Amino acid sequence: MGNPLSQYTLEELRQRRSVKWRHYPDDVLPLWVAEMDTPPAEPIRAGLADALSRGDLGYSTPGGTLDAFAGFAAARYGWTVDPANARLSPNVMLGVSEVLRHVTRPGDGVVINPPVYPPFYHYIPDSGRRVIESPLVRVDGHWTIDLERLDRDFADASAYLLCNPQNPTGVAYPREVLLAIAELAERHNVRVLVDEIHAPLTYPGVTHVPFLSLDTAASRRAIAFHSASKAWNLAGLTTAVIVGGPEAGRDIAQISEHFGDAVGIFGVLATEAAFAHSVPWLDSLLLGLDSNRRLLDTLLRDQLPSVGYSQPDATYLAWLDCSELGLGDEPAAVFLERGRVAFNPGGAFGKPGAGHVRLNLATSAERIEEGVRRMVASLG
Amino acid sequence: MGNPLSQYTLEELRQRRSVKWRHYPDDVLPLWVAEMDTPPAEPIRAGLADALSRGDLGYSTPGGTLDAFAGFAAARYGWTVDPANARLSPNVMLGVSEVLRHVTRPGDGVVINPPVYPPFYHYIPDSGRRVIESPLVRVDGHWTIDLERLDRDFADASAYLLCNPQNPTGVAYPREVLLAIAELAERHNVRVLVDEIHAPLTYPGVTHVPFLSLDTAASRRAIAFHSASKAWNLAGLTTAVIVGGPEAGRDIAQISEHFGDAVGIFGVLATEAAFAHSVPWLDSLLLGLDSNRRLLDTLLRDQLPSVGYSQPDATYLAWLDCSELGLGDEPAAVFLERGRVAFNPGGAFGKPGAGHVRLNLATSAERIEEGVRRMVASLG
Ligand SMILES: Cc1ncc(COP(=O)(O)O)c(C=O)c1O
Ligand SMILES: Cc1ncc(COP(=O)(O)O)c(C=O)c1O
Repeated sequence: MGNPLSQYTLEELRQRRSVKWRHYPDDVLPLWVAEMDTPPAEPIRAGLADALSRGDLGYSTPGGTLDAFAGFAAARYGWTVDPANARLSPNVMLGVSEVLRHVTRPGDGVVINPPVYPPFYHYIPDSGRRVIESPLVRVDGHWTIDLERLDRDFADASAYLLCNPQNPTGVAYPREVLLAIAELAERHNVRVLVDEIHAPLTYPGVTHVPFLSLDTAASRRAIAFHSASKAWNLAGLTTAVIVGGPEAGRDIAQISEHFGDAVGIFGVLATEAAFAHSVPWLDSLLLGLDSNRRLLDTLLRDQLPSVGYSQPDATYLAWLDCSELGLGDEPAAVFLERGRVAFNPGGAFGKPGAGHVRLNLATSAERIEEGVRRMVASLG
Repeated sequence: MGNPLSQYTLEELRQRRSVKWRHYPDDVLPLWVAEMDTPPAEPIRAGLADALSRGDLGYSTPGGTLDAFAGFAAARYGWTVDPANARLSPNVMLGVSEVLRHVTRPGDGVVINPPVYPPFYHYIPDSGRRVIESPLVRVDGHWTIDLERLDRDFADASAYLLCNPQNPTGVAYPREVLLAIAELAERHNVRVLVDEIHAPLTYPGVTHVPFLSLDTAASRRAIAFHSASKAWNLAGLTTAVIVGGPEAGRDIAQISEHFGDAVGIFGVLATEAAFAHSVPWLDSLLLGLDSNRRLLDTLLRDQLPSVGYSQPDATYLAWLDCSELGLGDEPAAVFLERGRVAFNPGGAFGKPGAGHVRLNLATSAERIEEGVRRMVASLG
C-alpha cells in the first residue's frame, strides 16, 4: 500500500466537485477545509461500488455499523462502547444540536474553548442556546485548557462542548486534564458533550483518551460524537455516531426515531467498511501525515522561522501563528491574494484566532512545499 | 432501455442494505417504504462511479445542481425557477423544519391534511410548532381537500404544509383546488409550504401544477420542496431542493449557511445527473409504473373486490381501503402476520388511515401479483 496522500495529480484533484476543490479559482492551491487528497480505502471503494451495482440507494438501516464502531473503539482506544447506547446521526453537528435539545433548555449556556471549529459558534445559537467562550491558553508553546477560567465559566453553564483532539490546534488532551474537566463538570452539574471526530487521527506515540472511558460521574453522563468522516475522508457521505455514557441512556433514547432519515446509506456502508476493515489504510495514512507534519516543521524553521507552529498530536491540521509576519489579523487573506494559497482564516475560530491560519496537511509533500513557497512569496 | 422495475431478481434485492429490504425477515415480501426496486439511471450510476474513482467524498458544493433543477422544472412543468432563490437541503423534512423556524414562531399552528406522510406529525412538534389536522374528504371515491374545513382551520394557523402530489392517496390537485387554497391562505395570512417531492412521478395525461407557478399573493410568498429522491430512487443519498416564491427571498436568505453541511456530495452529483440527464429513464419508469397501477386495479377487482382503490394520479403509492375485509383498524398487521407481505400501516398517516394500507407499486409485475396473492391468503 503506497502513501494515500500522493495518489492523485493536481489535474485529477481539480476534477473533484467538492468545496475544497471548487470554491477557489484554479490558480489557487487549496490547503483549507477538512478534506483529504486521498483515494478511498479499498474496502470502502469496493463496498460503495457494490451498493451502486445493486441500486442500493434507499433509506438506510444501521446494520452492523454501530458494532463495527464498537469493535474499533475497543481495539484502538481500549474503550468499551455499548452499541445499544449509540445512534447514527447525519453528521456530528446535527447530532450535537439534537442532543443539546434533550439535555439543555432554551437559553442555557454552553461552554466552548476558542480557538475552535467555527460551526460551534453557529449550531449552538441555532439550537436556541447561548455560547460561553472559555479560551484555551498557551503554555510553553502548547495550547491547553485554562482550568481556573473553566471553573468560573461553568458557573453559568449547563453544558460543555469539548473538542478532543482539538480542531484547529491538534492538541490531544492528556488523561489528567480530562479528569480535571470531569471534576469541574460534576461540581457545576454541567453535561459534557465531547466531539472526538478527529480521534482516529491521533499520531503514533500519543494516546487518545475517550472522555467516556474515564470512570467519573461526569463521564458516565457524557455524550460523545464520533465519525469515520475525517480519518477516512467521508464528510460528503454524511454519517456520524452518537455514543452515550452508561448514565446517558435516557438522553440517547429521546433522540427522535426520524433523526436517522437523513443518514445516508453510502455513509452507513462506508462507515462500517472504515471501522471494520480499513484500519491498515488508516495506519498507512498516519505514516504519510506524520511525515507531513515534520516536513512542515522543517520548511517553516528554514523559510519562515517567525511563524509559530507546534506539530499536532492528532488531526491533519496545522495551526500557524503568523502574527509576527506583520500581515494583520487575517493573514489568510494576504496569502490568498498575494500567494494564491488558501488556508482557513484564523478569525473564524474565535478571537484567539487573530493572526493565525489553519493549514490542511492531508495532501502530498510536494503540495505542502508549494504551499510554503507561496506563503514566502506573499511576503515579497 | 428495458423496464427499470424488472431488472433485479428477489435474490439480488435481498442483498440490499436498505431499510426496505432489511427491516423484515426474508420470508416477508416488502411492499412498503418509499424505495424502488430499480437500478440507478445510467447517468447517475456513471457519475457516482466517476466520483468514487477520484475520491470525491468531501463536503459538497451545489455546482450546477440548482440550474439542472430549474431546467427540469421549466421543461417538465412550464415553471420558471430562479436558482438564486433556491437552496439545497439534506432532505425534504429537515428543509421543512428549517423553513418553519424562519417563517413561524414557537407554538404556532401548522395545518396538515391527513391521511398524510407520517413524519409530518413528528417534524412539526420537533420544531416546536403545533399540528392542526384538516382531514381530506372522499368525493366520488377520490380524495380531495375539504375547503370549508380548511377555511376554519386556517383561522388558528400561521402555516400550511401541503403535500402535492399527495402521499399516500396519489392525488395530484387540479389548478382550481390550488387556486382556492391560495385564496384562503391569503385571506388568513397563512404561509404555504408545499412538499412536491413526488411531482416528477405524475402519470402521462395528468398535469402537476407547481404551487409556485400560480400567479397569486399566497404562491409568491410560498416555499416549495423538491427532490430527485423519489422519482430516481435516491433517498439514501439525502439531497433535496428548497425553492422560494419571488416574495420569499428573504426567508430563503435566512437559511443558515451551515445548513448545507449535511448535503451529501453523492446526493448533489446524483441529483444533478437526474434532473439534467435522466429524464428518458424517468419516462421509461413511468411506463412501468403506469402498467403496475393498472395491473393492481385488475387484480383487486378480480380477487379482492371489496378493497377500495383509485389509481394514483402520481406517485408509486397505492392507498387501499381494506375496511370491508373485517381485519380491524390495522389490516397491515394481519397481512404481515398471516400473509408475510409488508405494507405501510394506514394508522400512521393519521386517523383517516384506519382500515387502510399503503402499497408500494415500484417493483416488478410478478411481485405485485405475489403481493395480492399474499393478501388473499391472509383472509383464508
Ligand atoms: C471538530 C470538528 N467537529 C465537527 C466537524 C464536522 O463534522 P460533520 O461534518 O460530521 O458535522 C469537523 C469537521 O471538520 C470538526 O473538525
Ligand atoms: C410526501 C413526502 N415528503 C417527504 C418525504 C421524505 O423525503 P426526505 O427523505 O427527503 O425527507 C417523503 C418520502 O417518502 C414523502 O413521501
